[in-house]
Amino acid sequence: MVDDMRERMILIENISHLVRDAHRVEHDVDVLIEGNRIVRIGQVTSQEITLETIVIDGRGRIVTPGFVNAHTHLYQSMLKGRRDDVPLVSWCEEVTFPFVRNVLRRMREGSVGEIGYLWSMLGTIEMIRSGITTFIDMDMNLPGVPQAWAEMGIRGIAAMSMVDQWVPDDLITTPERLREETLKLIEDWHQMPSEDPLVQVFLGPSAPFTCSEGLLTWIMETAERYDLGIQTHVSETEWEVQHSLETVGKTPLSYLESIGFLSRPILAVHGVHLTDKEIELAKNRSVTVVYNPKSNMKLGSGIAPITKMRQVGVNVAMGTDGAASNDLLDPFEEMRTGVLLQKVAAMDPTALDARDIFASATAVGAAACRVDAGTIDEGRLADLVIMDPSAPHMFNLSDDIIPALVYCAKGSDVETVIINGRIVMRDRTITTIDEKAIIREVKKIGESYG
Amino acid sequence: MVDDMRERMILIENISHLVRDAHRVEHDVDVLIEGNRIVRIGQVTSQEITLETIVIDGRGRIVTPGFVNAHTHLYQSMLKGRRDDVPLVSWCEEVTFPFVRNVLRRMREGSVGEIGYLWSMLGTIEMIRSGITTFIDMDMNLPGVPQAWAEMGIRGIAAMSMVDQWVPDDLITTPERLREETLKLIEDWHQMPSEDPLVQVFLGPSAPFTCSEGLLTWIMETAERYDLGIQTHVSETEWEVQHSLETVGKTPLSYLESIGFLSRPILAVHGVHLTDKEIELAKNRSVTVVYNPKSNMKLGSGIAPITKMRQVGVNVAMGTDGAASNDLLDPFEEMRTGVLLQKVAAMDPTALDARDIFASATAVGAAACRVDAGTIDEGRLADLVIMDPSAPHMFNLSDDIIPALVYCAKGSDVETVIINGRIVMRDRTITTIDEKAIIREVKKIGESYG
Repeated sequence: MVDDMRERMILIENISHLVRDAHRVEHDVDVLIEGNRIVRIGQVTSQEITLETIVIDGRGRIVTPGFVNAHTHLYQSMLKGRRDDVPLVSWCEEVTFPFVRNVLRRMREGSVGEIGYLWSMLGTIEMIRSGITTFIDMDMNLPGVPQAWAEMGIRGIAAMSMVDQWVPDDLITTPERLREETLKLIEDWHQMPSEDPLVQVFLGPSAPFTCSEGLLTWIMETAERYDLGIQTHVSETEWEVQHSLETVGKTPLSYLESIGFLSRPILAVHGVHLTDKEIELAKNRSVTVVYNPKSNMKLGSGIAPITKMRQVGVNVAMGTDGAASNDLLDPFEEMRTGVLLQKVAAMDPTALDARDIFASATAVGAAACRVDAGTIDEGRLADLVIMDPSAPHMFNLSDDIIPALVYCAKGSDVETVIINGRIVMRDRTITTIDEKAIIREVKKIGESYG
Repeated sequence: MVDDMRERMILIENISHLVRDAHRVEHDVDVLIEGNRIVRIGQVTSQEITLETIVIDGRGRIVTPGFVNAHTHLYQSMLKGRRDDVPLVSWCEEVTFPFVRNVLRRMREGSVGEIGYLWSMLGTIEMIRSGITTFIDMDMNLPGVPQAWAEMGIRGIAAMSMVDQWVPDDLITTPERLREETLKLIEDWHQMPSEDPLVQVFLGPSAPFTCSEGLLTWIMETAERYDLGIQTHVSETEWEVQHSLETVGKTPLSYLESIGFLSRPILAVHGVHLTDKEIELAKNRSVTVVYNPKSNMKLGSGIAPITKMRQVGVNVAMGTDGAASNDLLDPFEEMRTGVLLQKVAAMDPTALDARDIFASATAVGAAACRVDAGTIDEGRLADLVIMDPSAPHMFNLSDDIIPALVYCAKGSDVETVIINGRIVMRDRTITTIDEKAIIREVKKIGESYG
């Protein structure tokens, strides 16, 4: 299904609003895609296309770079509505741990079946419907997970979740097995399918306090050897910072620096309680902070100092976190809530603006995900989203459409999604899999996991 | 169009999730509507219906009370995307004042045309599409505004906006004319159309600091004489509280109490900076605070102490505010953002829960709007919303659907809307007006207002 795309061309013509990035919007322009790349932007002539070229009418439409969800846990899509409005510890104990325990037990027994494949399908369907084209899933290494992404045609990054301390013993895989599984995941899925890579493997030490220094050292070495990205939760809660001070005598990001962990680029998820010194450190090292505003709000974790980070020059990407603490995998609501939260925290309506958060959700996220997309430029990977702004909530008389994308747009405005030069959703119908059949299966298996 | 509904019956049968209020969810049940009232909830037999009864299949559906938007300014739907990320004063000077000035000038010249009718249509289309069935519009008294609501079939409340000080002179109507216009609006539209009232008139002193004591006294007397509701902005910004202390020596709500203004029930919009003493006052008088979280965030006004208000027992309704400071008239996003904001402000995930904000957006709002709806009960007005929860973002295995309505649901899940026993939207098509034609007209007139 990927191969036959190599010679295929897609022309989106007469695009009313082409959002090339957070600062460039063009009007009445064409975009030509060949294979998995954007090859031309401008007025494309009929000589440039073939008879087989798929032509999409861009009149009255907005075309934007695909959105990047730089942090999620897809398995939590199975857990929506299971338990809300509870403290973090009860939420772990009552919502996520029992499910994870159940999954791990069945994995060990060899009876886990297709649940990983199915939750990946459920989560990615929701993401594609809202215009997300790349994501990082920090998760258990379950059979079928990256397979689902490849079949769906979405750019997924498996950040192999790793812990060897603090969490309940029965949730910890032995060190040998963890290393073995990690190396196998890299071999099987990093830069796969080989003819047209969609899937990457990152390493995902869950958090500094859940990993021993030995594990963190192995992670650094392995990332270096295979040239992999790294993602870890950092300073999500006040408790975590306090715990870090008590156990290793440093705040979490400073601790990572002290053991040399910041020698490679990392995505530091949350960063709600980073100190000013750590914000400077993030800027001087290649740390991209992943802002998950809705999750931080729902769990009462705090407000990440994103406005300050941006003033200092730290790269900030955007994530939705898992559906059990958000509960939506929707880049529009996440951008909107994220920018509004910064304004009210600063009591200043000029704090963080629409363009800044739009860049986080596109170009900055793509760079941190090591994906050559995130802006619409000739030569870049063809990951883009076509939106219909005719719904009344998008009513807009301005030529500058970026504020409207942040403050007004909804996932339901996304009409067509192209990832890696392939049409994954066309006119709101997912073309690569049978959505209804998948949802039926997800329900069935979800109920069997109680 | 209203009359022929009196004998009409609507049966929604086999409803999978009937949300009667924030605490009662029933399953596999029928709802029978006769005229504009709900007459039966339970297992309705074929003997109870006529051949002409409209039967709607409720299988796989959620039915909820219609949502109440207790504060908006519909004219701002024309101003989306015009200017974002600016301080309140620039926003007034660059966004709202020039538009209002333009409208008022054309009104005085007699050339205002249909703009009020059209922006009312635009705003109400967006609201109906998201399940709002009742709203309060604090606005200029423009021809065509309540007419649009009556034609649309939505329950609209015109809170006649009143000022006689502080704002620029050319935005102030002379006191005589203001009184005259108000009395005419009451006569023309309060409890209209008479055979089946949808429209009410409330009095809307813009804010304590923009109205003289004389005007406020006249408003109280007029509300008493005609038995009208009152809505006013109170303590939206720190500046306002400071200004009030400097000019009248009291914080805004305490000032209103001191002049006897709280002798009738009022809706106090925002209440971001109410003091603890004023929160007690709100509870002891019949003050319903209207929480507009997204607007307060976007304008950097602050976080209203809603959790504390609810602990004390103050009634809290929910509003979207105008589209120029939100920018969506969407009860789901508003509920969600509102509850998440309280959790993060308290750094406590148990602060304000899904049920509490759901009640604000339905029953509490309806009571404050003096509308006998807001819950689904026999004898109540038939204002209800049918939702399709089959989209992947609503995936849910719990029988208690209320958290999912708050944390997962989107406006796009709303399928059918019944207001006053009349189907206003069916399967996402608005039945009472020609939506596409209206939007075309709105664009045309919007452009003519520059």
